Amino acid sequence: MTYDWIAFLTDYGRRDGFVAACHGVIAGIAPRVRVIDVTHDVPPQDVRHGAAVLAQTVPYLPPAVVVGVVDPGVGTHRRGVALRAGENVLIGPDNGLLSWAAEACGGTTAAVELTSPRFRLDTPATTFDGRDVFAPAAAHVAAGAHVSELGADVPVADLVRLPDPWVRVEPGTLEAEVHVVDHFGNVALAANADDLGSAGLAGAESVETTVGERRYRAPLGRSFAEVASGELVVLIDSSGHVSVAANQGDAAALLGVAPGDRLTLRSVPEGPGRHGAGPA
Amino acid sequence: MTYDWIAFLTDYGRRDGFVAACHGVIAGIAPRVRVIDVTHDVPPQDVRHGAAVLAQTVPYLPPAVVVGVVDPGVGTHRRGVALRAGENVLIGPDNGLLSWAAEACGGTTAAVELTSPRFRLDTPATTFDGRDVFAPAAAHVAAGAHVSELGADVPVADLVRLPDPWVRVEPGTLEAEVHVVDHFGNVALAANADDLGSAGLAGAESVETTVGERRYRAPLGRSFAEVASGELVVLIDSSGHVSVAANQGDAAALLGVAPGDRLTLRSVPEGPGRHGAGPA
Amino acid sequence: MTYDWIAFLTDYGRRDGFVAACHGVIAGIAPRVRVIDVTHDVPPQDVRHGAAVLAQTVPYLPPAVVVGVVDPGVGTHRRGVALRAGENVLIGPDNGLLSWAAEACGGTTAAVELTSPRFRLDTPATTFDGRDVFAPAAAHVAAGAHVSELGADVPVADLVRLPDPWVRVEPGTLEAEVHVVDHFGNVALAANADDLGSAGLAGAESVETTVGERRYRAPLGRSFAEVASGELVVLIDSSGHVSVAANQGDAAALLGVAPGDRLTLRSVPEGPGRHGAGPA
Repeated sequence: MTYDWIAFLTDYGRRDGFVAACHGVIAGIAPRVRVIDVTHDVPPQDVRHGAAVLAQTVPYLPPAVVVGVVDPGVGTHRRGVALRAGENVLIGPDNGLLSWAAEACGGTTAAVELTSPRFRLDTPATTFDGRDVFAPAAAHVAAGAHVSELGADVPVADLVRLPDPWVRVEPGTLEAEVHVVDHFGNVALAANADDLGSAGLAGAESVETTVGERRYRAPLGRSFAEVASGELVVLIDSSGHVSVAANQGDAAALLGVAPGDRLTLRSVPEGPGRHGAGPA
Repeated sequence: MTYDWIAFLTDYGRRDGFVAACHGVIAGIAPRVRVIDVTHDVPPQDVRHGAAVLAQTVPYLPPAVVVGVVDPGVGTHRRGVALRAGENVLIGPDNGLLSWAAEACGGTTAAVELTSPRFRLDTPATTFDGRDVFAPAAAHVAAGAHVSELGADVPVADLVRLPDPWVRVEPGTLEAEVHVVDHFGNVALAANADDLGSAGLAGAESVETTVGERRYRAPLGRSFAEVASGELVVLIDSSGHVSVAANQGDAAALLGVAPGDRLTLRSVPEGPGRHGAGPA
Repeated sequence: MTYDWIAFLTDYGRRDGFVAACHGVIAGIAPRVRVIDVTHDVPPQDVRHGAAVLAQTVPYLPPAVVVGVVDPGVGTHRRGVALRAGENVLIGPDNGLLSWAAEACGGTTAAVELTSPRFRLDTPATTFDGRDVFAPAAAHVAAGAHVSELGADVPVADLVRLPDPWVRVEPGTLEAEVHVVDHFGNVALAANADDLGSAGLAGAESVETTVGERRYRAPLGRSFAEVASGELVVLIDSSGHVSVAANQGDAAALLGVAPGDRLTLRSVPEGPGRHGAGPA
């Protein structure tokens, strides 16, 4: 089996030649394969953010070899792995980076450690496994190598998994940590539409969002533009997450939150009340 | 008819997986098509800037389906449209983003609203039309769908157009708003070489640029390097706009201007005088 | 001979349509060729940085036409050139940008000036040679044009070369300038593993790094993770340079250095001593 596509996510940035060196290695091994760059602007060594972006992107990719490299442990004894998950093969460090994406692909069904020297570059470097280990492995798989050729089997249960993001549901109340803040400042929570329903908030007209001592009231809507410019709205975002957004504004800046912070959403009684970005 | 190329411009940034999700959708529908990313760093919701960048790029593209998504009205009743213009098909929100590019392609000759469910993704999301509506429509057109299949005809006269950028020509004087400030800080005005000629400035050796109360004298040149490092020069830029540039410097910072600000260029008598970046 | 790949490096940034216009020109001339973007985030007009990134990337590319455009002299009489070096053709301004990459490819064996109007775009612009001169030349070469068709021969000895980066080796001491600071803040020196050996430092356990008056002690290691988070380590990086890095930290910020600054590495006696990021 071969793959036409490699998807590629790193924290390498785009100022240096790191990404291009990986593209070059892939081109040399599997010249017909095309690369979709997911992003290379993951904050340096932020495995959790990389995992979140990868998981929300893979459902929209064609069958692909997915390479993720956010790797604080490069050069140590952390394993490099290849996972089979759904129609995809996921390749990267065994530090949890791939775990949410593997779930989004239907779950990991097999895993190997990247031990075979045949599928890596012969360089003395120990600090650039993206170029020397992961990109070559991905290119070889895309060109037809079997995952099982890459190295020794690893029990799926032994793979490193990230802790599940924190969500707590009670009647009338949904608590969750901030999962991702995107480029626009939209605040995606770890909770999804089912959690909103379980909390009994799915039919609410408005919800109150609490961050520490600060409280904000916002309508529960379907799109940004249901509120005035700069006002807050709570909606299910394009990845299925409960999200706090500001129409044409930056909700994360308005709320003063970052990934990992905890928010509480509560139903509020109908009636007059200040909607929007200011404290309620 | 099929297209080999899709050109793609958004304000999505590159930190998240938004652009890659669109690439993935296109790859799934039209795997042989290749995507040229025009830019994804349009300032969030800045339709005018996106329109300007798109218009100056399309003349250098091969025949392509051009997708632009800068979309403050996503989720509202603003239309999604596909336009035929010259050899190209332009797809995006009907908010003026495509209007200058359509002119650069020779003018819009037909338009449809993207109403057909056959050519969009079946997701519940209402906040990511780039992935769910525009990218699939573009991929289907590139793969051979007729624009007329995408939805109901829209009279070309009904399409939203951006207001023309402000330019005023008088003998010896050219007034114009700043159209684009580029990565290097070059200040492209809305005026072009014809406007400079109509104002009688085309043959001038030097012009005086006025911004509010501040005045700067600069030679009229053909390239940055005709003046000393850091000095100002007025020239016709690579898109045909009258541009104020600083050799190896940032003219926008020197002049203190941003898009939309108005500048006046006047002929100045020959003779000794301070050239360059300081107030004249 | 044809090429399947064009590698492309500029200081154009990605906010404007400059890079896409070049991609479009290439697509129009050589539609089957694929482009690997090395980086477009070279600091504006920083020829030296562009040269360093290009040189460390080309060894990992398949045979390619390599286009580099960092060009403070655009529009002046500086030459545009095409160089044959190893299996590659390098195209760009004759200002030294290509010189280190050409060495990395095995050295320049022939050069021409890009004088033939047949291989450039017919535009009046004088400020965008990337689009009008270098991209078309690269696309024509990739599509089969001989380098000799592009213009008149240039003696290789007449090509502009960058000065060699500064390195001085003495017994027990290695002095070198900072060559590149990468996205992570790793500080690559101009010195390589041979220089470290010549200075008698290759077997040292620890080295003392001096920057001006400040002194830092760090182990000589093979990977970042050999020291605690935030601590300094000296290693040979993935490009073969002696590099000062901080595990999961920004060594350039810790040391307060930038490209061109000079560092001294010295052997230190074994024994207790403060390792790491603080002054020793």
